[in-house]
Amino acid sequence: MTHSAKRAFGSQIQTLKVKTTRRTEWVNITSDVNRTVVASGAKSGVCYIYVPHTTAGITVNEGDDPDVARDMEAAFDRMVSRDAVYKHYEGNSDSHIKTSLVGTSQSVLIEGGHLHLGQWQSIFLCEFDGPRNREVKVKIQPDLAP
Amino acid sequence: MTHSAKRAFGSQIQTLKVKTTRRTEWVNITSDVNRTVVASGAKSGVCYIYVPHTTAGITVNEGDDPDVARDMEAAFDRMVSRDAVYKHYEGNSDSHIKTSLVGTSQSVLIEGGHLHLGQWQSIFLCEFDGPRNREVKVKIQPDLAP
Amino acid sequence: MTHSAKRAFGSQIQTLKVKTTRRTEWVNITSDVNRTVVASGAKSGVCYIYVPHTTAGITVNEGDDPDVARDMEAAFDRMVSRDAVYKHYEGNSDSHIKTSLVGTSQSVLIEGGHLHLGQWQSIFLCEFDGPRNREVKVKIQPDLAP
Repeated sequence: MTHSAKRAFGSQIQTLKVKTTRRTEWVNITSDVNRTVVASGAKSGVCYIYVPHTTAGITVNEGDDPDVARDMEAAFDRMVSRDAVYKHYEGNSDSHIKTSLVGTSQSVLIEGGHLHLGQWQSIFLCEFDGPRNREVKVKIQPDLAP
Repeated sequence: MTHSAKRAFGSQIQTLKVKTTRRTEWVNITSDVNRTVVASGAKSGVCYIYVPHTTAGITVNEGDDPDVARDMEAAFDRMVSRDAVYKHYEGNSDSHIKTSLVGTSQSVLIEGGHLHLGQWQSIFLCEFDGPRNREVKVKIQPDLAP
Repeated sequence: MTHSAKRAFGSQIQTLKVKTTRRTEWVNITSDVNRTVVASGAKSGVCYIYVPHTTAGITVNEGDDPDVARDMEAAFDRMVSRDAVYKHYEGNSDSHIKTSLVGTSQSVLIEGGHLHLGQWQSIFLCEFDGPRNREVKVKIQPDLAP
């Protein structure tokens, strides 16, 4: 009974709002996601971080030196040219391609009531067609109590 | 008791069959996956979409304008040359590399008995070494009833 | 009661140790991960394979011919140049970028008490800044017994 209630609570999808300011911009959202985990009361389990968009993704990478995110933004812009010949009429095919390269979601483990990230790991919303108002969905599947 | 039975039902792996027709071809499989979710009876939870292949992957991206998928197919073929010098004797190393770029599985949230996708999101099987007969495994982990 | 205990057992995070020997090196860790699954006693469910690092990732790809991994290592080194102009002071921005291309985790289904991999699929730790001592976190969410 107790654990069912806990699971049901944890499983509600929470929505974070993120405002991006550049066309390509990786935004560190770790503290917002972790706050959602703590609020859920889940002690251990899995946290899904998911964007409902097709020109933005989610990745886990270094958040300690902000230059890493800047280097990654530039690298993705070099790897997938904005000016290649594309069929899609909106002119943002490069943004869609970059999104599939990083992926639209990540799963992070929960332990001790917090995100179980490595020392240098942060969670990033990867904006590839900003500036825009974006949503990030967070869902938690807690383990059952023993 | 009720919730255990529900979980056990939802957790059976379902297999979808997909026939591809070109060497590189992204096939929209959203409606097939969603039909599996609805049939499972799961109201909320997580849906895993997984390919058991090493030259095909799964991605979530725009399905509204089919030109986006065509642009992505061409971009992956440009990014990873088929004709570079490779060691693997089968001559499809480019297909393996593209597969690791998109990944072999995706997790999509379930809410209200359906896939909880964004407005423009679709699920694609990414064929990189077709034409072939492919399988897509779908597994659902429903939340427990409160 | 029985199934709660089973879930609680399965959900403990296990840590695998991997020693890499080259700067870019994909190491096949399938048998170690599978041993963890078998030891957990989980008959069906989902297995999360997660690295807590920011210059190494996880991918699922062909493990039968070791030349495929060698081709993939070379392809990633070609795709993301080590010598581009980067801001990050440590000089390993290319390693971070490659990590986000493959991702820091993979989810693999469990069926019949084992990893439910395709015939040619193996799980690889993708080292992009070795040689180093790496950790791989394995977490299992078993299905509940009916």
